[in-house]
Amino acid sequence: MHTLLLIGIGAGDPQQITLQAVAALQRATVFFVLDKGAGTEDLVQIRKRILERHAVPDRYRLVQVEDPPRASGAADYQAAVEDWHARRARLYARLIEDQLRPDDVGAFLLWGDPSLYDSTLRILDRVRALGVPLTVQVIPGISSIQALAASHQIPLNRIGEPLTVLPGRRLAGLGRIDNVVVMLDGECAFATLDDPDLQIYWGAYLGTADELLIAGRLVEVKAKILEVREQARRRKGWIMDTYLLRRLP
Amino acid sequence: MHTLLLIGIGAGDPQQITLQAVAALQRATVFFVLDKGAGTEDLVQIRKRILERHAVPDRYRLVQVEDPPRASGAADYQAAVEDWHARRARLYARLIEDQLRPDDVGAFLLWGDPSLYDSTLRILDRVRALGVPLTVQVIPGISSIQALAASHQIPLNRIGEPLTVLPGRRLAGLGRIDNVVVMLDGECAFATLDDPDLQIYWGAYLGTADELLIAGRLVEVKAKILEVREQARRRKGWIMDTYLLRRLP
Repeated sequence: MHTLLLIGIGAGDPQQITLQAVAALQRATVFFVLDKGAGTEDLVQIRKRILERHAVPDRYRLVQVEDPPRASGAADYQAAVEDWHARRARLYARLIEDQLRPDDVGAFLLWGDPSLYDSTLRILDRVRALGVPLTVQVIPGISSIQALAASHQIPLNRIGEPLTVLPGRRLAGLGRIDNVVVMLDGECAFATLDDPDLQIYWGAYLGTADELLIAGRLVEVKAKILEVREQARRRKGWIMDTYLLRRLP
Repeated sequence: MHTLLLIGIGAGDPQQITLQAVAALQRATVFFVLDKGAGTEDLVQIRKRILERHAVPDRYRLVQVEDPPRASGAADYQAAVEDWHARRARLYARLIEDQLRPDDVGAFLLWGDPSLYDSTLRILDRVRALGVPLTVQVIPGISSIQALAASHQIPLNRIGEPLTVLPGRRLAGLGRIDNVVVMLDGECAFATLDDPDLQIYWGAYLGTADELLIAGRLVEVKAKILEVREQARRRKGWIMDTYLLRRLP
C-alpha cells in the first residue's frame, strides 16, 4: 500500500498555503512534479521554491516528469480527455511503483484546490484499477476562484443567488448568466458575449507579483482584456487566468 | 481611514488556515467576533482558540457583540435579508468608529472563505455608504465545500461539467442536477428529492473532531442523514453542514 498526499498549494501566492499543506510538505519524501514542457518552467520553479521553503532538506526527492500531451482540437472532447487520463494513469502507476519504497510518502503539488478542475483524483482511481494499492489524503488549497474574488474584493455570489463554475467551452451553451466563474478558458469565450448587462471581473497570475486585474462592463472592457492577456501570454510564455461574469441589477 | 482585514479561517480544522491568514492574525489589533447567541458558544470558542494560537498576546483586543437576529419565516426573503444587512451595517459602523483608534487594524474572522455565502463584504459596502472610510483586505480561506470534497476524496466537478453552488432554498427550483453543492440548508431540501439517479456526499462539522460524513445513493441514505443530522444538532446545539448532489452516470 502506497501513501500519496494530494497537496493543494493555492493559485500562486506562496502565502496562500495552509498549515495543513505545510505539514504535508514536511511529511512527504517523494514529490512528483509533472512538467507540461516548453514555456512552463516558471510553474515548475514556483513549486521548487515552495519545497525549498517548507520541505525538510535532504529528506525528500523530486521526481520531475514530462506530462503526456493532450490531443488538442479533437472532435470528441470527452474521448480525448479519457484517452489522456488513461495515458497519465499508466505513467503515474509506473512512477509510483518505481519511485516509492515501502516507507516513502509520495506527494503531488496541485495548483489551487485538488477537488476543483484537477484530474489527479480521477487518475488515481484509474491507477488503483490498474492494481496499484493506494492510500490517499487530500489537502485542500485556495483555488484561483477565491484568489480572484479576494483580489477584486467581491463576493462570488449575490444574496440567495446560485454560483456556477464551468470550463470556458461550456459558456456558450449556458442560458441566463447570473454569477458564473469560468476556469480553463484558453479560447477567451467571454469575448463572444455581447450582453450589455454583464459585468466581468478578470484576473491572471493571481496572487503573484505579475497579477493582472481588470473589471468593468463586459462590452466595454473585453477588448482591453484580450489585448492585456495576449501581451502577457507572449511575454511570459504561459498564462493562468480566470473570471467572474455577473448580471448587473 | 480605517483598515479592516477579512480573514477566512477555514471550515473548522485549525490546520486549514493559510500562512497569509496567520500573518493577518498577527497584524490585527482589534478582532470583532459576532455571536449569534445561545447555542453557538462553541463557534466563539473555536475562534478564540485560533487567536490564542496565532495572534500576538497582549497586542490585541477582542470585541464580542451579539449579532442582530434575522427575521425568520419572513414572506419576502430578499427584503428580510436587506433589512438585516442594514441593521448589521449600522452596528458595524458604530463598532468601527468606537473601537478602532487611528493606529489600529481591525479584523473579522470569517468561517470558510470571505467571498462565498458570507455577507461581510456587502455589509462593509453599506458601512462605507454610511460615511465610514475603510481600506479592506480580503484573505481567502478554505470553504466548507473544499473541506467536504477533501474529506470524501472526491472532485467537485466531473470532466468538463459545470458545478453549481447554491443555498438550500434554491434547490427545489433547479432543473436538471449534475453537480450541485448546497450550503446553508437548515431545511434539508435534499430530503424532498426522489430522483433515483442522484448520489449525495454529505458532511457536518467538517475538519473538526466531530466531523460526520455520509455518502451514497440519495434515496437510500437520506433518512439516515436526517436522523444523524438531527441527533448531532440536538447534542451540540448547532450544526454546520453541506453536501454535493451528483447525477450517477
